[in-house]
Amino acid sequence: MSNKTSNQMWGGRFAAGPDAIMEAINASIGFDKRLAAQDIVGSRAHAAMLAATGIVSDSDAEAMREGLLTVLSEIERGEFAFSTALEDIHMNVEARLKELIGEPAGRLHTGRSRNDQVATDFKLWVRDQLDATEGALRSLMRALLAQAEAGADWVMPGFTHLQTAQPVTWGHHMMAYVEMFGRDLSRVRDARARMNECPLGAAALAGTSFPIDREMTARELGFDRPSANSLDAVSDRDFALEFLSAASICAMHLSRFAEELVIWSSAQFRFVTLSDRFSTGSSIMPQKKNPDAAELIRAKIGRIFGANVALMTVMKGLPLTYSKDMQEDKEQVFDAADNLMLALAAMDGMVRDMSANREALAAAAGSGFSTATDLADWLVRVLGLPFREAHHVTGTLVALAEKQGCDLPDLTLEQMQEVHNGIDRTIFDVLGVENSVASRTSYGGTAPVQVRAQIARWKEMLG
Amino acid sequence: MSNKTSNQMWGGRFAAGPDAIMEAINASIGFDKRLAAQDIVGSRAHAAMLAATGIVSDSDAEAMREGLLTVLSEIERGEFAFSTALEDIHMNVEARLKELIGEPAGRLHTGRSRNDQVATDFKLWVRDQLDATEGALRSLMRALLAQAEAGADWVMPGFTHLQTAQPVTWGHHMMAYVEMFGRDLSRVRDARARMNECPLGAAALAGTSFPIDREMTARELGFDRPSANSLDAVSDRDFALEFLSAASICAMHLSRFAEELVIWSSAQFRFVTLSDRFSTGSSIMPQKKNPDAAELIRAKIGRIFGANVALMTVMKGLPLTYSKDMQEDKEQVFDAADNLMLALAAMDGMVRDMSANREALAAAAGSGFSTATDLADWLVRVLGLPFREAHHVTGTLVALAEKQGCDLPDLTLEQMQEVHNGIDRTIFDVLGVENSVASRTSYGGTAPVQVRAQIARWKEMLG
Amino acid sequence: MSNKTSNQMWGGRFAAGPDAIMEAINASIGFDKRLAAQDIVGSRAHAAMLAATGIVSDSDAEAMREGLLTVLSEIERGEFAFSTALEDIHMNVEARLKELIGEPAGRLHTGRSRNDQVATDFKLWVRDQLDATEGALRSLMRALLAQAEAGADWVMPGFTHLQTAQPVTWGHHMMAYVEMFGRDLSRVRDARARMNECPLGAAALAGTSFPIDREMTARELGFDRPSANSLDAVSDRDFALEFLSAASICAMHLSRFAEELVIWSSAQFRFVTLSDRFSTGSSIMPQKKNPDAAELIRAKIGRIFGANVALMTVMKGLPLTYSKDMQEDKEQVFDAADNLMLALAAMDGMVRDMSANREALAAAAGSGFSTATDLADWLVRVLGLPFREAHHVTGTLVALAEKQGCDLPDLTLEQMQEVHNGIDRTIFDVLGVENSVASRTSYGGTAPVQVRAQIARWKEMLG
Amino acid sequence: MSNKTSNQMWGGRFAAGPDAIMEAINASIGFDKRLAAQDIVGSRAHAAMLAATGIVSDSDAEAMREGLLTVLSEIERGEFAFSTALEDIHMNVEARLKELIGEPAGRLHTGRSRNDQVATDFKLWVRDQLDATEGALRSLMRALLAQAEAGADWVMPGFTHLQTAQPVTWGHHMMAYVEMFGRDLSRVRDARARMNECPLGAAALAGTSFPIDREMTARELGFDRPSANSLDAVSDRDFALEFLSAASICAMHLSRFAEELVIWSSAQFRFVTLSDRFSTGSSIMPQKKNPDAAELIRAKIGRIFGANVALMTVMKGLPLTYSKDMQEDKEQVFDAADNLMLALAAMDGMVRDMSANREALAAAAGSGFSTATDLADWLVRVLGLPFREAHHVTGTLVALAEKQGCDLPDLTLEQMQEVHNGIDRTIFDVLGVENSVASRTSYGGTAPVQVRAQIARWKEMLG
Repeated sequence: MSNKTSNQMWGGRFAAGPDAIMEAINASIGFDKRLAAQDIVGSRAHAAMLAATGIVSDSDAEAMREGLLTVLSEIERGEFAFSTALEDIHMNVEARLKELIGEPAGRLHTGRSRNDQVATDFKLWVRDQLDATEGALRSLMRALLAQAEAGADWVMPGFTHLQTAQPVTWGHHMMAYVEMFGRDLSRVRDARARMNECPLGAAALAGTSFPIDREMTARELGFDRPSANSLDAVSDRDFALEFLSAASICAMHLSRFAEELVIWSSAQFRFVTLSDRFSTGSSIMPQKKNPDAAELIRAKIGRIFGANVALMTVMKGLPLTYSKDMQEDKEQVFDAADNLMLALAAMDGMVRDMSANREALAAAAGSGFSTATDLADWLVRVLGLPFREAHHVTGTLVALAEKQGCDLPDLTLEQMQEVHNGIDRTIFDVLGVENSVASRTSYGGTAPVQVRAQIARWKEMLG
Repeated sequence: MSNKTSNQMWGGRFAAGPDAIMEAINASIGFDKRLAAQDIVGSRAHAAMLAATGIVSDSDAEAMREGLLTVLSEIERGEFAFSTALEDIHMNVEARLKELIGEPAGRLHTGRSRNDQVATDFKLWVRDQLDATEGALRSLMRALLAQAEAGADWVMPGFTHLQTAQPVTWGHHMMAYVEMFGRDLSRVRDARARMNECPLGAAALAGTSFPIDREMTARELGFDRPSANSLDAVSDRDFALEFLSAASICAMHLSRFAEELVIWSSAQFRFVTLSDRFSTGSSIMPQKKNPDAAELIRAKIGRIFGANVALMTVMKGLPLTYSKDMQEDKEQVFDAADNLMLALAAMDGMVRDMSANREALAAAAGSGFSTATDLADWLVRVLGLPFREAHHVTGTLVALAEKQGCDLPDLTLEQMQEVHNGIDRTIFDVLGVENSVASRTSYGGTAPVQVRAQIARWKEMLG
Repeated sequence: MSNKTSNQMWGGRFAAGPDAIMEAINASIGFDKRLAAQDIVGSRAHAAMLAATGIVSDSDAEAMREGLLTVLSEIERGEFAFSTALEDIHMNVEARLKELIGEPAGRLHTGRSRNDQVATDFKLWVRDQLDATEGALRSLMRALLAQAEAGADWVMPGFTHLQTAQPVTWGHHMMAYVEMFGRDLSRVRDARARMNECPLGAAALAGTSFPIDREMTARELGFDRPSANSLDAVSDRDFALEFLSAASICAMHLSRFAEELVIWSSAQFRFVTLSDRFSTGSSIMPQKKNPDAAELIRAKIGRIFGANVALMTVMKGLPLTYSKDMQEDKEQVFDAADNLMLALAAMDGMVRDMSANREALAAAAGSGFSTATDLADWLVRVLGLPFREAHHVTGTLVALAEKQGCDLPDLTLEQMQEVHNGIDRTIFDVLGVENSVASRTSYGGTAPVQVRAQIARWKEMLG
Repeated sequence: MSNKTSNQMWGGRFAAGPDAIMEAINASIGFDKRLAAQDIVGSRAHAAMLAATGIVSDSDAEAMREGLLTVLSEIERGEFAFSTALEDIHMNVEARLKELIGEPAGRLHTGRSRNDQVATDFKLWVRDQLDATEGALRSLMRALLAQAEAGADWVMPGFTHLQTAQPVTWGHHMMAYVEMFGRDLSRVRDARARMNECPLGAAALAGTSFPIDREMTARELGFDRPSANSLDAVSDRDFALEFLSAASICAMHLSRFAEELVIWSSAQFRFVTLSDRFSTGSSIMPQKKNPDAAELIRAKIGRIFGANVALMTVMKGLPLTYSKDMQEDKEQVFDAADNLMLALAAMDGMVRDMSANREALAAAAGSGFSTATDLADWLVRVLGLPFREAHHVTGTLVALAEKQGCDLPDLTLEQMQEVHNGIDRTIFDVLGVENSVASRTSYGGTAPVQVRAQIARWKEMLG
C-alpha cells in the first residue's frame, strides 16, 4: 500500500478537518454514558439538598428530581438520544432535563460544578465495582471451598519449580487460593472504606459561597463523609488507582491458577478435566480439550495491569487541580472492571464444573520418592540423627529402592536396618503419601485434619 | 449497597449462567470485525493461489472470490449481520460465504487454518497502521517545518530545568521536534520492513501437505516473502509489540511537546496562543483558554504504553505455539493505534493553528542575564582566559548590572574595563540575545543560519 | 566496533564458562545480605520455639541463640566474610553458625526450610519499610501543616488546566497534599495489618510433622498470627506487591507536587523560592536556581512503579508453590523502598526550607478577572438570576473592566448598575480575591476559616 | 514496632540532615562511574579536535590526552578514589586530570558542556551493549542451530493450548526460536544504526560559538554523523528507550523458551534433561532436578520491561531540554543490559548442555491420534471430499481406533474401507507421525527437508 493511500485512509477519518479531530479527542459521551445512573442519583441528592438548605424552592427541587427520574427511565429504555455535541453525560442529562422541566433545570448546577460532579459520579461507579468484586470473590471462594471439601484428603504432588517436592492434598491446594482471594477481598474492602468520601460540593475547585450542606448529600449517596479539601476532591484519582492495583493483584492470582489449570489439562498431566462448557474440543481428536477459558483468564492480567500503568502514567506529574488529562481515567477503569468481573465469573464457573482426576493425582504424588524427606525427618525426630547423617541414610535407601525398581514403602524392614540399624517398624507410619500428608499436622499444614479446620474457618467467615 | 445487591448486579450480567460467561469471554467478533477487509483480501489471495496450484478448480476459486467481494460490500454498507455464536470474523465471513456460494465455500479453508489466517489478517491491519502513522508523522513534521521557517530567527529562552539557560530560536525549538518525529518515522519504517513476512500457509502450526504456493500469496498481499517457520508464524506477535513500542516512544514525544504547550499557554508564560478550535474558553473570563487538546495529547501516552504493557504481559511465558491468551492482542493494538492517530492529528492541527507570541518570547529570552555564558565564552575565546577566571569576571559584571538594574549589554565599555581591562568593544557583538543566537553557528546550533540549513535538509527529505 | 570485538567483550564477563554464568544468575547473596538482621532475629525466635516445644534441648537452643548474636555483631561490624559459593544470606549465616557452635547448628533447620525462612525474612524487612514509610509520611505531613498554618490566608491562583480558575489560599493548596499523603498513610497501615501473618513453620511447602508451635514464633516476631496455608505461605508475594502499589501511588503524589515546585520556581511564575540546599545555582547567572531535588523526586515514580511492573510480571502465571523466579522479588522492593524513602525525605526537607513568595502569589491570584465567578454567583444567590443571565451580566462587566484597564472591584457601583440595576453595594463583599476566598466557607472550601479547621483536625490526628 | 522506632530508623539514614539527603538524591557517581571509559574516550576525541581546529594548542591537547590515559589506567587498576562530593564521573575525571596536568585541564571543557558530554558517554555505552547483544544473540542462535541440526527429524508433539495438535520435529521447534532471536538481532541492528549520531558539541543546549568540528569528533568516536539539532541532542533518550524496547521483546522470547524448558523438565513431560550445571538437585530425591536457570531467565523479563516502564514514565511530559529527571536513565539501562546479557548467556549455555529425550518426544508425538488431521487432509486432497465429510469420516475412524485400543496406522485397510470405500493403501503414507511430518513440505513447514533448508539458510546468514 502506498503512502498516498494510507495517508488518505487516515485523512479519511478526519476529513472534516480540525473540528472533527477536536470533537473526536475531546468528547467523552462515547464512554461516560456508563455513568448515567450515577450522574442522576447524584443530581437528585444535590437537588434535595438545595431545597433542604433553602437554596432552591421545594417545587423547583421536586421538578428536578422528577425530571431526572424521567431521563433515567428514557436512558434505561434505550430511548435517549445521546449527543456528541453535548460532549459528556452531564451535559446530555442536563440538556434533556431542561427540555423536560424548563427553567428550574438551570438551578440544579447551583453550588456545584462539572469537576466535583464527575468525581462524584465516577466514585459511585467505582464503589459499585468494589462491591461487585466482593460478591464475585465470595462466590469463587465458595466454589473453591466445595472443591477443597470434596478432596480434603486426596493426595497430589506438591510442586516447587514444577518438580514434585512433597505430597500434599487437593483440598490444601484449593485452600491456598482461598487465602489469596481472601486477601483480595480484604484489599477491596479497605479500598472501599478509604474512598468513601463525597466530593460533591467541592465545586470547581475552591468550594462555594452557597450555604450547601455537604454532610447531607454525602449521607444521601451512601458516603461516610464529605471529602475535606476541595482542591484534592476534584484532582484525586487515588480511588481509581487503588481499585486497579487491587484488581491487578487479584488478576495475578487468577493467572497463577489458570496456568495450573492449563498445565493440569495437558495430556502429560491429566490432573483435571475441565467441563465442555469452558473448553473447546476437536471434532476429530476426541481427547483434545483446549482450555480456552483458562487461557483467557490467564491473559486478563495483561489488560488489567495495563490499565493500572495507563492511569498511573496519566497522573504522573499533573499539577493541581483538574486537568483534561484526567478524562482518560474512565475507559481504563471500565475495561479493567469489566474484565476482572468476567475473569472471576469464568474462573468461578470453571472451578464448579471441573473434576479432579483423583487417580492421576495419587499416582503422580507417589512417584519420585516424594516421601524421602519424611523418611529423613523420621530419622531426625525419632532416632535423633543430625540432619546431615539423616540425609545420607535416606539417600542410601532411595538408591536401594531405585535399584530394586520399587518405592520406599516397598523396602523391607530388614533392608532398611542394614542401612541403619536403629530403624524400626514405626518408620512405615510416615512412608507412603497417605501417611506423609497425614503427618503434617502443624498449623496450616497439609494434613487433612488441618485442611478441614481451615475449610471450617473460612465457611464461617464467608457466612 | 449491601453485598446481596451488588452480587445480584454482577450476577445480572451473567444471569444466563456459564454459557453466557463463556460466550462473553471467548467470542472475539465484538472487536475483530475490524479485520473484515483484511480477512477478505487475504482469503481472496488464498483462493487465487488454490486455483493457480490446481488445488481447487478455477470456477470454485472464482465463486469464492466473487462471493467474498459480496460479503465485503455487505459489511461496508452496514448490512452484514454479525453473529456472536459464530465467535469471530473469520467464521462470520465463511458462514456468509457458504450461504452465498454453497459447497465451494468449504474448500476455501484448504491448506490453511484459523491460526495462520488470524496472524495474516492482523499483520495486514498493523501494516496499514504503520503506513498511516508514517503519513500522520509526515504531515505533522511539515506543520512543524512551517512554524520553524516562520520563526527561524525569533529568539526565545532555551530552558534546562525549566530555568532560562541560554537564548535559542523558535525555529530551533520546533526543529528539535522534527528530529524526534523523524526518528519515530524511521522506527515505523524499520518495523514495517521487519514484519512484512506472510504467515499464510503455516496452517495450524506445522505447514501443510497440500502443494500450496506461499510465495504467490505473500506477493499478492504485498508481503516481501513468506515467513520461514510455521510454528513461529502462528505464535509470533512481535509485529504488534514493535508497533506498540514505536507508538509509545512517539507518544512520549507528543507528551513532551504537549506539556510545553500547556505551560506556554499559562498566563505566566504566554509564549503561544492556541486556536479556539483546540482549546475551550470561559464565557465570563475572556483571557482564560484551556488547552484541552494539548492535555489530552499529553495523556495519550498512558493508554498507548499501557497497551504495550498489556500485550507484553500477555505474551510473557507463553509456550509455543498458539494459545488462546493471544486473542487479547487485538483490542490493545486497536486502541493504541486509534489513539496514536488521533493524537498525531490533533497535534498537527494545533501546530498549524497556533501563534507564537514573538514579543513575549523575546522578552523572556533577554531576562535573567541569559547571555552571561556568551560573555564568559568571549573572555575565553578572545582573551584566552582560563574558564575559572572568565567565570569570575562574568559574575562580577552580572552583579554590577544587577545592582544598576540593567542588562549586560547596557553596561558601558568603561564599566566593563574596570572589571577586566582586556575587554574591548567587540564584546558587544556577543551580548544581547540576537547576537548570542547568531553566534552559535556550530553544526546543529541555534544560529538562524544553522536552523535554516536544517529546515532545508528536512524539506528535501520529506519530499 | 566489529562483532568479534563485542563478542569478546561479552564473552569476557563469563570467560570462566557455564559455571560462572550459573553462579552469576543464581546467587542472591549480593543483594539478600540486606536481610541479615531479619534472618537472625527469625532464627533466634525459631530456636527458642524448638526448645520450648522440646524439639531441641535448651542448651542447644541457647548455643544457637548466642551464636546467632555473634554472627549478627560480626555482620554489623563489617567483619563477616560473605561467600558467593554459599549462594544466599541464609546459608552464609548457617555456615558461620556451624563454625561457631558446631553440631547444634545443624538442628536449627528442624521444622523449617529455606522457603518459609526467606518468606519470613522478607516479610520482616517489608514490614520495617511500611513502618519507616509511615514515619516519613508523618514528618512530611507536619512540614506541610507548618506551611499551611503560616499561609492559611495567603491568596494564590487556583488552577485548572494550568489556567487561573478561582483564587484559593496557599494553606488550602498545602492541605490538598496533606489529604493525599494522609491516604498514603492509611494505605500503608492497611497493608501492614494485612501482611502481618507469619510464614515460619510452613516448611518447604506442606508444613511439618515436628510438633512446632507456630503461634509462639509468630508472636515472638511481632506477627498477629501464623499464616493459615503452608502452600500459600511460601508462594505468596502479595505483601511485596501491595507495598509497591502503595509506594507507587505515593510516588505519584510526590511527582505532582514536584511538578508544581518546578513550575513555581520558573522565572515566569516565581511562586516559591527553594533553598540553596535543595537546588543548584549558576556561578554567573545569579537568579538561576535549578530545582534539582524537585526534578529527581518527580522522576522517582519511574523506578518505583517500574519495580511494581517488574514484580507483577515475574509473578504472572507462576504455578504453585515456590519457583526460582521469585528470587527476583527482593532487588525490586529494595530499590523502590530506598528511593521512596529518599524522595519523601527530600520533599520533607524541601517543604521545610522553601518560602512562598506571597506578593507574587497575590498578584497572580488577582489577575485575569479571577473573581468573575464570584460575581456571577452573587447575582444568582442575591438577585435570584438564572445562571445563564448571571453569566451574561458578568461577561458584560468583565468586558467593561477590560476596556477600562481595571479589575472588577475597581468598577464603580454606578457602572455596574448600568449593566444590571439590581446590583447593590454588597457586591463588593465578594469581589477581590480576599473576599472571594473568604466567602467559600462550604466544608472543605478555601476560606481561611475552613483551612484552619482542617489544619487543626490533622494536627490532632497526627498527634 | 512503634512509630517512634521506625521514625528513628528512617531518620538514621539521613541523620546528617538536609545536606546528606541532597547528596544522596543528587550524586550519580555511585552508578555513572560505569561510564568512565566512555567519558575518557570522548574527552580524548574532543581534545584532539580542539587542537585540530586551533582552539587549544597541540601541546595542551597532548597533555590532556596523555593525562586522560593515566586517569583511565588508574580507574582500571582500581586505584582511583571516586568522590561523592564531585557528584558524577565527569567531574571526578576532570578534577583528577587537573591534579595531573594542571591548568590545561581547564581548557578541555571548551565548546562542550556536561549536557552533551553525558549524552555522548551514555550513547557510547548503549552502543557497546547493542554490539554485545548482537554477539550474544549470534552465539545463542548457533547453539539452537546445533540442536536443530541434531534433531531435524526427531518427532515431537506440536502444541496449541498446551494440547497436542499435530506432530512436528525437534529441529523445527528449535528453529522457531532462531526466527525469534533473528528478529531480535535485526531490531538491535536497526536501533544501532538509528542512534549512531554524535551529541558532542551540542554544548549546554544551543551549540557553541567556538569553531568546533563536530564531524571530526563524530568520526573519531565511530558515529555516522553529528546530531543535527543541539536542543534535541541533549534532551533525547530515545536510544535508551529503543534499547529497552528491543531488550524487552527479546526477554519475552527468552521467557517463552524458559517456560517450555520448565514444563519439559517436569516429571510428567520429561522432554528434556538439563545439565547439572544449570539446575540444582536434591541429595535425597535423585530424579528431582530444579530448572533454576530456566526459571530465572523466565523472570528476567520482569526487570527488563520494568526498566522500560521506568524510563518511559520518567520521560513522560518533560519539557525541553535537559531536566535532572533524566539522571534516572542510567541505572535502569545498566540493570536491564546486565540482566539481558546474563539471561542470554545462561540460555546459551543451557541450550548447549541440554539433551532432548528422543523417545519421550516420539511417544508423546504419537499419542492422542495426533495425525487425525493428516487423515482428513488426505481424504480432501486425494478423494476430493469436502471438509465436513472428511471430518466425519475421520471422526468415525478415530472412534474405531479408540474402541480397539490402537492408533490410526494400526487399523487395517479393510476396516478403513468399511467407513469409506474410496480409501486405498496410499493412506498409510500420511498416517503415523513420521509420515505426517515428512508430508508437510510447504515452505516453512515441519518436514525435515524444510527444516534442514532453513538451518542451511541461517548458517549462511550467521556466517
